[in-house]
Amino acid sequence: MHSFSSADIQEMDKIFRLNLINSCTGYKSANLLGTRSTRGNTNLAVFSSITHLGSNPAIIGFVLRPTTVPRDTYKNIKETGLFTVNHIHSEVVADAHHTSAKYPEEISEFDQTDFKPEYINEFYAPYVHGAKVRLGCQYLNEYEIKENDTLLIVSKIEAIHVSENILQEDGWLSLEAAQSVTINGLDGYASPKLIERFDYARPKT
Amino acid sequence: MHSFSSADIQEMDKIFRLNLINSCTGYKSANLLGTRSTRGNTNLAVFSSITHLGSNPAIIGFVLRPTTVPRDTYKNIKETGLFTVNHIHSEVVADAHHTSAKYPEEISEFDQTDFKPEYINEFYAPYVHGAKVRLGCQYLNEYEIKENDTLLIVSKIEAIHVSENILQEDGWLSLEAAQSVTINGLDGYASPKLIERFDYARPKT
Repeated sequence: MHSFSSADIQEMDKIFRLNLINSCTGYKSANLLGTRSTRGNTNLAVFSSITHLGSNPAIIGFVLRPTTVPRDTYKNIKETGLFTVNHIHSEVVADAHHTSAKYPEEISEFDQTDFKPEYINEFYAPYVHGAKVRLGCQYLNEYEIKENDTLLIVSKIEAIHVSENILQEDGWLSLEAAQSVTINGLDGYASPKLIERFDYARPKT
Repeated sequence: MHSFSSADIQEMDKIFRLNLINSCTGYKSANLLGTRSTRGNTNLAVFSSITHLGSNPAIIGFVLRPTTVPRDTYKNIKETGLFTVNHIHSEVVADAHHTSAKYPEEISEFDQTDFKPEYINEFYAPYVHGAKVRLGCQYLNEYEIKENDTLLIVSKIEAIHVSENILQEDGWLSLEAAQSVTINGLDGYASPKLIERFDYARPKT
């Protein structure tokens, strides 16, 4: 067994620590966030921190570090209040990862990859054409996590678009049928196969 | 394509909405949180909201809804400041899901499943014996998400224990080698296979 203490973690090589700490919490969600500035510049960026916060109201969160690098996604969301969340599927992982490259604001990741913007029901932010699970979201609030100067962005799901053969009768989405991927660390993309769905757990009698 | 508006989501059958909203953000991390009260009662509970918040310092978050149901995990963390995060592996998904059953505080999930507690380096909270990636964590702070009365618990990773053959030279953990699982919705457990790891993305020239 490899064991690392708090002091070991602090003294680690930076890249080693980035890889270890980013993979030690387990698999992450894999989404592309689509935004558009008020001037009309579109942006697309991979995020692995989209988290379910609640079902009623339907609320999600994600984490940003706005103080260290320019963040077009954050700027556009603050300007317009709107963004889209689009699942990443196994056949497009290379292009999805490429959206993490730092392009200047006037260059759209839609022009640097094969992803095409799609506008649905006059929602201002661009969806990713062909993504099989897509959410239209409205910014609600942000919380400053003062322990490491990050922001938790809290948003409401205003629209859900799901392709055929993914939605089950009870509302559950088969992410395997969608071929949605999951992220391992900073740079690993993996394709899951369902083991089992379980019933609501009740105490043994 | 199935499309749901904000009004559709609000008027949905409760179970349908729970399944849809819990699966629409993509795959989630699959962890067991181990705690022990000051009186010595152990608790083990499945969580799908553990999220990476930062690498330096090594900080994670997870979400709790403390106001609606008793939460032994939360009570024990507030009493002792400590908890463990233990990956869920494919062969133990049934027992892992069973920890979501609501047992009274004096009954330990360790006694109702095949999971065995293990104590490492005098850390007060129990680790799960046999889990291949384990974190010892210290509570730092909590943020009340007022949009839906949830709490984001922010904690520091104080120790990391990784079994053999999972840690790579650059610090990355192969979650596939660990057979760690990921969660689809509220009740689906899936086993991922790595597609590819990519280099750090740089703009095309």
